[in-house]
Amino acid sequence: MDIGIYPGSFDPITNGHLDIITRSAKLFDKLIVAVLSNPRKTALFTVDERIEMIRESVKDIDNIEIDSFSGLLIDFARLKKAKVIVKGLRAVSDFEYELQMALMNNKLDSEIETVFIMTSSKYSFLSSSIIKEVSSFGGCVRGLVPPIVEKRLKQKYHNL
Amino acid sequence: MDIGIYPGSFDPITNGHLDIITRSAKLFDKLIVAVLSNPRKTALFTVDERIEMIRESVKDIDNIEIDSFSGLLIDFARLKKAKVIVKGLRAVSDFEYELQMALMNNKLDSEIETVFIMTSSKYSFLSSSIIKEVSSFGGCVRGLVPPIVEKRLKQKYHNL
Amino acid sequence: MDIGIYPGSFDPITNGHLDIITRSAKLFDKLIVAVLSNPRKTALFTVDERIEMIRESVKDIDNIEIDSFSGLLIDFARLKKAKVIVKGLRAVSDFEYELQMALMNNKLDSEIETVFIMTSSKYSFLSSSIIKEVSSFGGCVRGLVPPIVEKRLKQKYHNL
Amino acid sequence: MDIGIYPGSFDPITNGHLDIITRSAKLFDKLIVAVLSNPRKTALFTVDERIEMIRESVKDIDNIEIDSFSGLLIDFARLKKAKVIVKGLRAVSDFEYELQMALMNNKLDSEIETVFIMTSSKYSFLSSSIIKEVSSFGGCVRGLVPPIVEKRLKQKYHNL
Amino acid sequence: MDIGIYPGSFDPITNGHLDIITRSAKLFDKLIVAVLSNPRKTALFTVDERIEMIRESVKDIDNIEIDSFSGLLIDFARLKKAKVIVKGLRAVSDFEYELQMALMNNKLDSEIETVFIMTSSKYSFLSSSIIKEVSSFGGCVRGLVPPIVEKRLKQKYHNL
Amino acid sequence: MDIGIYPGSFDPITNGHLDIITRSAKLFDKLIVAVLSNPRKTALFTVDERIEMIRESVKDIDNIEIDSFSGLLIDFARLKKAKVIVKGLRAVSDFEYELQMALMNNKLDSEIETVFIMTSSKYSFLSSSIIKEVSSFGGCVRGLVPPIVEKRLKQKYHNL
Repeated sequence: MDIGIYPGSFDPITNGHLDIITRSAKLFDKLIVAVLSNPRKTALFTVDERIEMIRESVKDIDNIEIDSFSGLLIDFARLKKAKVIVKGLRAVSDFEYELQMALMNNKLDSEIETVFIMTSSKYSFLSSSIIKEVSSFGGCVRGLVPPIVEKRLKQKYHNL
Repeated sequence: MDIGIYPGSFDPITNGHLDIITRSAKLFDKLIVAVLSNPRKTALFTVDERIEMIRESVKDIDNIEIDSFSGLLIDFARLKKAKVIVKGLRAVSDFEYELQMALMNNKLDSEIETVFIMTSSKYSFLSSSIIKEVSSFGGCVRGLVPPIVEKRLKQKYHNL
Repeated sequence: MDIGIYPGSFDPITNGHLDIITRSAKLFDKLIVAVLSNPRKTALFTVDERIEMIRESVKDIDNIEIDSFSGLLIDFARLKKAKVIVKGLRAVSDFEYELQMALMNNKLDSEIETVFIMTSSKYSFLSSSIIKEVSSFGGCVRGLVPPIVEKRLKQKYHNL
Repeated sequence: MDIGIYPGSFDPITNGHLDIITRSAKLFDKLIVAVLSNPRKTALFTVDERIEMIRESVKDIDNIEIDSFSGLLIDFARLKKAKVIVKGLRAVSDFEYELQMALMNNKLDSEIETVFIMTSSKYSFLSSSIIKEVSSFGGCVRGLVPPIVEKRLKQKYHNL
Repeated sequence: MDIGIYPGSFDPITNGHLDIITRSAKLFDKLIVAVLSNPRKTALFTVDERIEMIRESVKDIDNIEIDSFSGLLIDFARLKKAKVIVKGLRAVSDFEYELQMALMNNKLDSEIETVFIMTSSKYSFLSSSIIKEVSSFGGCVRGLVPPIVEKRLKQKYHNL
Repeated sequence: MDIGIYPGSFDPITNGHLDIITRSAKLFDKLIVAVLSNPRKTALFTVDERIEMIRESVKDIDNIEIDSFSGLLIDFARLKKAKVIVKGLRAVSDFEYELQMALMNNKLDSEIETVFIMTSSKYSFLSSSIIKEVSSFGGCVRGLVPPIVEKRLKQKYHNL
C-alpha cells in the first residue's frame, strides 16, 4: 500500500496513538497523520500545538507526514491520493462507531478502504479525554503520553 | 394489533427509518409516526419541517398518521390508545439504551408493549446525525435519505 | 396482527419464556408456541414432554396453540400463515445471534417479519441451560420455572 | 477489608445505588459513600442536597460514612485510607467505561483495588438520568428511588 | 504491503468472504487465502473441496494464491513471508475473539501485523454455519454464496 | 472480608489467573482457590495436576487455600463459610455470562456476594483455551503462564 492516512483529534497524542502510528508506518510507503480541525468541538490544544507534539513524538520515524484537515475525511484522503484509512480499535464502543463510519466512508468512495489495527493491550484503557481529566487534577501521566505531551499538559493546567 | 406508535426525533427521516415504517405499517391497522419535540435538544429542522418530510416520504402508505409529542412517550401512547411502541434496532449501543427505555416504559404502564424490529442490514450504518455531518460538508447522501430530505439538507446547509 | 409464532427449544420452558408468551398473546389473534425438534442437539426432555409442560403452564391463556416443527422456521411460519415471528431478547450475545437470524429469515421471506420483545428484567439471567445446570446439582429453581417444570426436573435428575 | 469507598454523582440516589450500598456495607468495616462534586457538570441537586438524600436513605445502616470529593478519586481514597473502590455494574456501556477507569486508577495507585458488584436485575434499567427525565415530565418514580428523593424531585420540578 | 494472508475455515466460502478477498487483494502485491485444516473440527467439505470452491470463485482476481495450513497461523505467515494478516469483522462477538487472537499473535511475533476490514453491511448476517443450516433444510442461498458453492451444497445435502 | 473464594477450571492456571489471585489475596483474611471438577467437560489436566500447578505458582502468598469442588459453587461457598465469590473480568462475553451466573447465585443465596476484579490489561487476551491451542502447536507461552505450567504443557503435548 502506497499511502495510508491515520486521522484523529490528537488532543493530545497518547502512547496508544503512537503505538498505532509506529506499527502502521511499517505497512505503507508513506503514512499521513491527519489532525482533524473541528470548529464545533472545543479542544484543549490548538491544531498547531497538536501538530507540534505529534512531530516531536514521531521524529524517529522516516515515512510520516503530518497534516490537518477539516470537512469530510474521504475528501482529504482523495486529495492526498491515500487509498487506505487506518483506525485503531480499543473496545466495543469504538467498534460500533467505527463500523458506522467505515461503512459510510465506503459508501462515499468505495475505492478507499478502511483498515483497523488493535491497540496494544497495555494501552487499551488510554484516551485523550482520560489523560486530560487525570492531568487536570494533577495526576501523573508519565508513561501514558510522550514526554513533550506531559510537559505541555503541565503548562496548560498548572502553569508549570 | 390495532394501533402502533413509532417515535423518534426524525431530524431528518432517513431511509433506515422509512424501512422500519414501511415494514411496521403492515403489522397494524394504524401506525402513528410520532415526532418528538424536545425543547432541550437543538434540532436542525423544526418539528413542522420534519413532519413535512415524513409526510412526503410515506405518502404511498395508507395507514400512517403523523403527529408530534413532547413529554413522556407513554402518556402520548395512552392518549392515542396505542398498545404497541415500535423501535428499530441497529447495534449494541442502540440495544442497551432501548432496553433501558423499554423496561422503564413497561414499569410506567405495563399494558403498553415495546416491540423491536431489526433495521435492514443495508441501512445498519445510517443515523440522522451521520447524515447531517456528511451533508454539512457537502457529501452526497443520495440513496440514504428520501429525495425530499436530500433537497432540504442542501437548502439548509448550502442555500441551494 | 392475526397470527404470531414464538419458536424455541423450550427444554424446558422457564418463567422468562412464560413472560414473553403472556405478553405476546395480547398482541395477536393467535400465538403459536413452536417447539423446535432438532435431531442434531441432545435435549433433556422429549418434544412431547416439552409440549406437555408448556400446555400446563399456559392453560389460562385462550389464544395459544402449541406445535412442534423441524427444518426451517420460515417454512413452518408460511405453513401456519403466521406473518410475525416473536423472539425474546435478554442480552448482547442474544442480540448478535438473533440479529443474524432475523436478517437471514428476512432474506428467505421478506413478507414475514421478526419482532423482538425485551424479557422482563427480573428474568434477564434465566435460560433453560442454567436451570438444568442448577437443578442437576440439586439447587432450587422455584419461582424461576412453572411448578410442572420444577416437578419434572426433580423426576429427571433425582428420581423424586 | 477495612474501608471501602463507593463513589458517584448520586444526582439523585436511586434504589439501584441503595442496593449496591446495602450489599457493599456488609463487606467492609466502614463504607464511605463519596459524592463527586464536579464543577464542569451541571447537576440538578447541590452536593449538600444529594448528601442529605443519601443520609436519609441509609440511616438504618450503621457503618456508612457520607462525604464529598472533587479531583481524582484515587487521591480521595488515599486520604481516607480506603483500600477498595466499589462500583456497580449494569450493562455493557457501563462495563467499557468502568474497565477504562479501573485500569487507569490501578496505574495511578496499584495498592488500591476496584471491585465491581452487579446491580440487582430488577434495577438494571435504572439511572439517575432516566429518573430525572421521567420525573420532569410528571411520571411516577415510586419504587425506583427512596421516598425522600421522590419528594425532592416533585419540589424541584413541580414546586409541590 | 507486499504479501497479505487471509485465513479461515471457508467451509464453505460465502459472498461475505469473497467481499473481503476482493477488497483486500487491492491492498497487497499478493494475497494468500489460507484454508485452515483443523483435524479437531468436523467440516462439511474437505480441504480440497474448499480450495476448489475458492479457486473457482476468485478466478478473475490475478494476485491471489490459495493454500492450506495446519498449526499456528503465525508460523504459516512466517513461512510465506507475509507481513500482514487480514481478518473480516462483522459483529461484537467476532470482535472480542479476534481481538484476543490478534493480541496473542502479536505476542508470538510482533513483526506480523493483523489488520481488520469491515464486512460489507449487506453480508453482515452471513456465516458459513448459517449457510449450511439453511441449505441443509432446503432453503435457498442464492446471492449469499458463489454459484459453485450453491451447487456443491445441493450435492452434499440433497444428492442433486 | 474474612473468607473469599476464587473458582475456576484452571486447566491450566495462567498469569491472568495469578494476577487476580495475587490482588484478591490482599482483600481477604483467607482466599480459597477452588478448582471445579466437572465430569461433563474434558480437561487436559487432572484436578490433582491442576492443584499442583496452582500450589507451585502461589507458594509465596501466605493466605491461600487450594481446594476442589463439584456441584453448585454456592453450596461449596456455604460449606467453606465464604461470604464472597471473586471473579475476574476480561471482556464483554465474560461480562454477559458472569452477570447471569452472579444473578443466579444471588437468587440461590443472597447472603453470598459476587465481586468482580478487572484482569490487568496486559493479560486481557489470555485464556486457558488459547494457551492450550498455542502450546499444542509448539508455540511459546513463556511469560503468559507460570514456569511450572510451561513445563507441564510441554510434557503433555510434546513428551519433553
